[in-house]
Amino acid sequence: MKKPILALAALSLAIPATAAAQRYDHRYGLEPGAHDEVAWDFLEGITTEIGPRLAGTEDEARGRAWAMEWLIERGFVNVADEPFMHNTWVRGEERARLVGAGAQPLVLTALGYSGATLAEGITAEIVQFATVNDLRAADPAEVAGKIVYIGNPMQATQDGSHYGMFGSPRRQGPGIAAQKGAAGIIIRSIGTDNDRLPHTGATSWPDGVEPIPAAALSNPDADNVERLLERGETLTLELVLTPQFLGMTQSGNVVGEIMGRDPSLPPVLLACHLDSWDNGTGAVDDASGCAIAASAALHAVEDGQPLRTIRVLFAGAEETGLWGSRAYSEAHADEEIGVGLESDFGAGLIWRLETNFTQSNPALFQQLADAVIPYGVLPAPQITATGGADLNILRDQGGAIIDLQQDGLRYFDLHHTANDTLDKVDPGELAQNVAVWTAVTRVLANHRGSFLGAPIMLEE
Amino acid sequence: MKKPILALAALSLAIPATAAAQRYDHRYGLEPGAHDEVAWDFLEGITTEIGPRLAGTEDEARGRAWAMEWLIERGFVNVADEPFMHNTWVRGEERARLVGAGAQPLVLTALGYSGATLAEGITAEIVQFATVNDLRAADPAEVAGKIVYIGNPMQATQDGSHYGMFGSPRRQGPGIAAQKGAAGIIIRSIGTDNDRLPHTGATSWPDGVEPIPAAALSNPDADNVERLLERGETLTLELVLTPQFLGMTQSGNVVGEIMGRDPSLPPVLLACHLDSWDNGTGAVDDASGCAIAASAALHAVEDGQPLRTIRVLFAGAEETGLWGSRAYSEAHADEEIGVGLESDFGAGLIWRLETNFTQSNPALFQQLADAVIPYGVLPAPQITATGGADLNILRDQGGAIIDLQQDGLRYFDLHHTANDTLDKVDPGELAQNVAVWTAVTRVLANHRGSFLGAPIMLEE
Repeated sequence: MKKPILALAALSLAIPATAAAQRYDHRYGLEPGAHDEVAWDFLEGITTEIGPRLAGTEDEARGRAWAMEWLIERGFVNVADEPFMHNTWVRGEERARLVGAGAQPLVLTALGYSGATLAEGITAEIVQFATVNDLRAADPAEVAGKIVYIGNPMQATQDGSHYGMFGSPRRQGPGIAAQKGAAGIIIRSIGTDNDRLPHTGATSWPDGVEPIPAAALSNPDADNVERLLERGETLTLELVLTPQFLGMTQSGNVVGEIMGRDPSLPPVLLACHLDSWDNGTGAVDDASGCAIAASAALHAVEDGQPLRTIRVLFAGAEETGLWGSRAYSEAHADEEIGVGLESDFGAGLIWRLETNFTQSNPALFQQLADAVIPYGVLPAPQITATGGADLNILRDQGGAIIDLQQDGLRYFDLHHTANDTLDKVDPGELAQNVAVWTAVTRVLANHRGSFLGAPIMLEE
Repeated sequence: MKKPILALAALSLAIPATAAAQRYDHRYGLEPGAHDEVAWDFLEGITTEIGPRLAGTEDEARGRAWAMEWLIERGFVNVADEPFMHNTWVRGEERARLVGAGAQPLVLTALGYSGATLAEGITAEIVQFATVNDLRAADPAEVAGKIVYIGNPMQATQDGSHYGMFGSPRRQGPGIAAQKGAAGIIIRSIGTDNDRLPHTGATSWPDGVEPIPAAALSNPDADNVERLLERGETLTLELVLTPQFLGMTQSGNVVGEIMGRDPSLPPVLLACHLDSWDNGTGAVDDASGCAIAASAALHAVEDGQPLRTIRVLFAGAEETGLWGSRAYSEAHADEEIGVGLESDFGAGLIWRLETNFTQSNPALFQQLADAVIPYGVLPAPQITATGGADLNILRDQGGAIIDLQQDGLRYFDLHHTANDTLDKVDPGELAQNVAVWTAVTRVLANHRGSFLGAPIMLEE
C-alpha cells in the first residue's frame, strides 16, 4: 500500500485488454518487462509492512486489517473480516545438537502442532526409518524412548504432485511415532532445495494421542545425519523445542466484492489465503495468490461493470489445516457460489487450464481456452479440476471449479521456509498470472448461464 | 575418513598423470565424471564427522585431531599440531524484531568479536547510512544511542574482488559506530545471495573502543528494512545478542610432510585453513582447500619421491584474524620456505595462474603455464601473485608465491553462512582443482634451482 490508487479508473495496466499471441514475449505470453503494479503493490506491501501472518495470532489479525484497508482503497465493496475460532499454536525455542559421534549442531524447525520437550531439552538415540510405511511396520520396542528419523526425499516436479505422497513423513509420521512411544521425531524437510533452511508445516495427531516433539531438519542436515548413520554410528540427539498451544483464538476470512449488474446471479469467487507460516513473510505462500486474485478482479472490470458480482476470498488459517476455508463453507452453506478458482502455488507461470465442467459445458470450456491460449496456457480437457485448499465451499456445494495450474518446479524450494520472501517472486511471472486470471475472470463474470452446464445424463 | 587407505600405492586416482588437452571435458579440463576420491574423502569426512570448527574452541581442536589422523593414515610424516594462543569469541543467542512500524522479526547473526546486548536485549531507533564513508562523516549526535544500519550491497564477480571494498561495513563499520556512541550496528550481509541466511565474519575494534553489538542481516531482511526506510518510517529494533569472549585459549596449525630426496632444499608449502565459522560446516571455507592441497601433495608423488619436501599447512584461526598464519610465520621465521600456494576460495574451477616470479624466473613460469593450460587455466604474466591469508610466512620472508585463482562467482553466496555445507561442492570442479594443483606441485617439488630466479637488477 505504498502508493494507494483510489479509483478503478486510475489503475495502471501493463497488460493489453485484448491479447494477440504474436505480440507477446515468448516467455510470459506478455510484452518484455511486463509488470502488474496492482498485484505488486499488494504483494510488496503486505510482505514488507506486516511480514509473517501465523494463523490465529495478532500478526495474522494485523494482516487482515491491512488487506481490508487495501481492498477498500482499491474500490472493493462489502469488505469484511468474517471471524471464526482457531486452535492456535506458536513456535518457541528450537535447537538440536548431536552429541557423541558426529557431535555438531543441527538446523531444524518445529512442525506446526508439535509437542514440546522439557525446557532444558531431551536427549535420546536416533532410530532411522526410510519411509512412513517402514515406521508403521516397526515393533514399538524399536521406537519407544527414541527419536525417530525419516528421510524420504521429495523430487521437484512442475505440477508439485510429489508433495502428497512425499509429505507423509510430516503429516502422518509424528502421530505414528507417538503411538509407538517415541520420545520425538525428526524428518527430512519436505522440500526440494539444499539450503540450510528447514521446512515447517502442520502435522496432526490421532485422537487421544499426546503430541510429541516433531521437527524438520534442513536437507543438508538430513544428508549429514544419513551419512553418519551409513557409517553405522549410534547417533544421540539433544533436542530443545518449546512451542506452545494457545487454545482457541480468533482468526478470520477477509472478503470484498465488485458488484455485478445482476446481483441475483451467483458470484464468481476468486480465492487465496492470507495467513502464512511464521518463519518467512509468506510471499509465495500465499500473498502472491491474493495479489493475483485481487488484481485480476480489478482488471476484469476495467471495460465496464460485469454481469455477475466478483468476490475475493482471502482465507485465514489455511496453513494450520484449512480452518478458514471450512469456516467459510459452513457460514455460506446457503448461498450459492457460481464458480471458484484459487491461486495458492506461488507466482510461477500458469501453464495449464483445467475445469470440472469440460464435458458438461464444452462451450464455456472453449471460451476459457481461447482466453488463456495467448498466454501460453494449455487447455487440458482430460484433467478434472478439484480446486485448492481455499475452495471447500465449491467442493461442498458441488459447484464449478477452475484450476489455473502454475509452474511449481521450484516452489518447494521455498515452501514453509524463512526463504519465502518478496525477492523470490519474478514480477514478470506474477504479471502473467494476473493476465491469465484477468482473461478468465472477464469470461466468468460475464457468463449468463449455468457454469456446470447441463447435468451429464448417464442414461437416456 | 570413511574408507581409510593406508598406503600411497593404494590411492585411486581419477586423473591421468599426463594431461593432454584433447582428452578432457571442456568444462573441467577433465574427463566427464572426474572425481577425486582422496580430496572428497577429506572434505566429506571432516564436514560430516566434525562439522563446524570455530577458532579456539573444542570443535576446532577435534578438527585438528581428525585432520592429523587423516594425514597419518594417508602416509604423511612429521604430522604435528603446532599450538598458539588465541583470543576466543563464541556466539550466543541472536534475535531481532522491529517494533512499531513494520513490526516483524528480522534474521541476523552476530559478527565475530561483536559485543553483547543486555540479556533481555536493547531497543533503539535505526539510523541509516548508505556507506561506511557516510557513517564516518556523520555527526556523533546523529548516531549516539541509536542502532546504525549500513546497506552497501556487494556484486558477485568471478575473482571476488569486490569483497575488499564492499566488506568495509563489516570490518570498519562497527568500530566507527562505537566511537560515535551507537548502541549497536546492523549491516547488510557481505554476500551475493538472496537467502534468508546472514553472513557472519570478523569485525575489529580500534584500540580502547569497547565492542558494541554488531550483526549482519540476511539480504532479504536488509531489503525489507530498506523498503520500510524508503517509506519514511521511523524504525525501532529490539535486539538480543549474547556472544561471549572466552579469553585466550589454544588453537593450532596442523602440518604434515612428504619427504623429498634432498631435505636440505627449502620445502614446497601447500596451505589452507582448517577452522571455520560456527554456523556452517566449513565445506567451501575451507575444508575444500585443505582437501585440494593434501590430495595434490599425494598425487604429485605417485610417480616417485620428489626432489623437495612437500609440506601441507592447515592453518588454525584464520577466520578470526589470520592468527594461525601469523603464528606459523613467527615460529618458522628462521626456516626458509621455497615456494607457497594456498587454496581458500571454495572449490570453483581454477581459471588463472599468477606468480610473483614471472619476470625474475620466466623459465619456471613457462613450465607452470605448460602444466596448467591443459586444464583450461590461463597464465597471467601481467598479474603479480600476493598469496592468501595463510601465506604470511612467504610474504614475511619475501619468498615465491603462486596463486591458482578459482572461479568465485557464487562463493560469496555461501561464505560465512549456515549454507556452507558439503552439498555445495561440485565433485567435478573439486577434481579439476586437484588436477591443477597436482600438476603445479609436481613441477615445484622437482625444481632444483631458486624459485624466484635471479634477483631483478634495476641497474647494471
